[in-house]
Amino acid sequence: MGEPTNFQWECPLPLRSHRHVVMGHGGGGKLSDDLIRHLFLPAMGGGNDAQTDAAELMIGDRRVAFSTDSFVVRPLFFPGGSIAELAVNGTVNALAMMGAMPLALATGFILEEGLPLADLHAIARRLGVAAQAAGVALVTGDTKVVERGHGDQIFINTSGIGLIPAGRRLHPRRIQPGDQILVSGEIGLHGVAILSVREGLIFETVIASDCAPLHTLVATLLAAAPATRVLRDPTRGGVAASLNELATAAGVGMVIAEGALPIPEGVAAACEMLGLDPLYVANEGKLVAIVAPAERDAALAALRSHPLGRHAACIGQVTAGPAGLVIGRTPIGGERIIDLPLGELLPRIC
Amino acid sequence: MGEPTNFQWECPLPLRSHRHVVMGHGGGGKLSDDLIRHLFLPAMGGGNDAQTDAAELMIGDRRVAFSTDSFVVRPLFFPGGSIAELAVNGTVNALAMMGAMPLALATGFILEEGLPLADLHAIARRLGVAAQAAGVALVTGDTKVVERGHGDQIFINTSGIGLIPAGRRLHPRRIQPGDQILVSGEIGLHGVAILSVREGLIFETVIASDCAPLHTLVATLLAAAPATRVLRDPTRGGVAASLNELATAAGVGMVIAEGALPIPEGVAAACEMLGLDPLYVANEGKLVAIVAPAERDAALAALRSHPLGRHAACIGQVTAGPAGLVIGRTPIGGERIIDLPLGELLPRIC
Repeated sequence: MGEPTNFQWECPLPLRSHRHVVMGHGGGGKLSDDLIRHLFLPAMGGGNDAQTDAAELMIGDRRVAFSTDSFVVRPLFFPGGSIAELAVNGTVNALAMMGAMPLALATGFILEEGLPLADLHAIARRLGVAAQAAGVALVTGDTKVVERGHGDQIFINTSGIGLIPAGRRLHPRRIQPGDQILVSGEIGLHGVAILSVREGLIFETVIASDCAPLHTLVATLLAAAPATRVLRDPTRGGVAASLNELATAAGVGMVIAEGALPIPEGVAAACEMLGLDPLYVANEGKLVAIVAPAERDAALAALRSHPLGRHAACIGQVTAGPAGLVIGRTPIGGERIIDLPLGELLPRIC
Repeated sequence: MGEPTNFQWECPLPLRSHRHVVMGHGGGGKLSDDLIRHLFLPAMGGGNDAQTDAAELMIGDRRVAFSTDSFVVRPLFFPGGSIAELAVNGTVNALAMMGAMPLALATGFILEEGLPLADLHAIARRLGVAAQAAGVALVTGDTKVVERGHGDQIFINTSGIGLIPAGRRLHPRRIQPGDQILVSGEIGLHGVAILSVREGLIFETVIASDCAPLHTLVATLLAAAPATRVLRDPTRGGVAASLNELATAAGVGMVIAEGALPIPEGVAAACEMLGLDPLYVANEGKLVAIVAPAERDAALAALRSHPLGRHAACIGQVTAGPAGLVIGRTPIGGERIIDLPLGELLPRIC
């Protein structure tokens, strides 16, 4: 395959010496970042704010958030959810992290020839249930089919529109030294749930994905802590990737108290067995909030008052620098650098 | 694969006896229609207006069109365009058929491991150029990667937001007997362009895809013929599928003068050689307009005044019925039923 001209592409900056797409380009880490910064943005033109998961547009006098995500998770069904709940909640959460209330979703299906219609029906039904639970309308869609062996059962793209209430200002540039870093609950559940079913691992208890729509949790948080700087949902690359992106975007440092991380026992056991770090494992129903120091306690109380934020915790704080450096402090006083992952521990986690 | 419950799906209406997804489910014909009406809509819940390619939402006092399409065309590059121009113009045109001016696009990439980065760069560059040409901003995006053999180089989803000017009312239910049926130019070019390169066919002249953004053509048409009933872009399934959908949705009949169809010589020759009917071949830069009888001449003149409408023609008219029946009349007085195709002549045309 090639473009029908004798076009020779010169890489503007080395893409870590790859000449072809590798799995890590979809992992939400350094390789994804390279692709966005050094290939997509220069080639497709600006307009993108690479620091947010969704775009903000003015339509009349309304602030509108607009987001898109494709879902390629394997397996399609897993403890706690399926590709359908991910497709709805993933886009709802991308909008929610902009402070937006989700309004409408559009679904694009790429089906592989041979997919049982019963599976497609189960997925469609779950999409409907998840959308209703999130209070968002499925307003339009598209279906394409590719030949057997040229797809993988079903891929779902979900794009969404949300409304950002007046006065909300969430952006990494608002982060300041001294700000407090919160997570809304126990981390690592989605990644471990996927991994356990994919690898056929049996743990003492079934670990279920935390997949959930976060917009009402966000509304509760922002009502109590209106100076909140920025929100992120730590999906691919986990909390570590979200913190690194924010620290880099804001030009600040961060120090995390590793003992304060809410890690469920099952996730800790699974990660120890598999040699994974829970900070890098994907979540689908958690948020990271950077809040003003004076609002920390109000923010924590608000999060904990919501069913999806019962285990919220303050896990660290923002420092003056070095810019982009995230440090983990262990309870016994050790320090380590929590780096941006190169790719993804587990491909096709969402 | 299966849902982890012992769920048994009972088909609400027979999906033409298929138990699995077949290529035709993505073809834009009867099988696609079955899937939407008998599986997606009942399972996912209402809200969808299956009669339009995009949804309409009110945001504040603005009418917003919202659309999504995935593009899986093979090959990625073809005479007259590539998957990139299709991805931009396809969504621009879905918005334009609602009478909307496109405002912003979001792009979702599903890349197959091993895709040369040079090809990805060429596609990204073409996306940027096509978006600029259409006057629409690429505001946000997402990238996923699947393992080699689980995708097909690149799939692109494009969702779009457009603004519908006040007063525009385009809907199949506005069609009345006596209305005139226009096409904006020569038909069959995109499908024949794809087929020729895919099958390695050599014609006397290279037939190029007509892929183009139609929103300025629509604006020109609607300024001259404000009573225009409805617009459609005849992509998958060609003009035949668009006319059948409109006739069924409006509960009217249609009579087409086959001698009036603007069919380029190269398309006619290719279709004759391959046994195809140009009415069923996909277009990517044409529209079908149903206009009021009194505005027919103004509409034709307006279309012909625009570079993309030079070969516009009136090809028939709406009749009282039988509802949903589209009849073709040959120059020598013969008649045939122009039926909705079952699937697609050519899979993965867009």
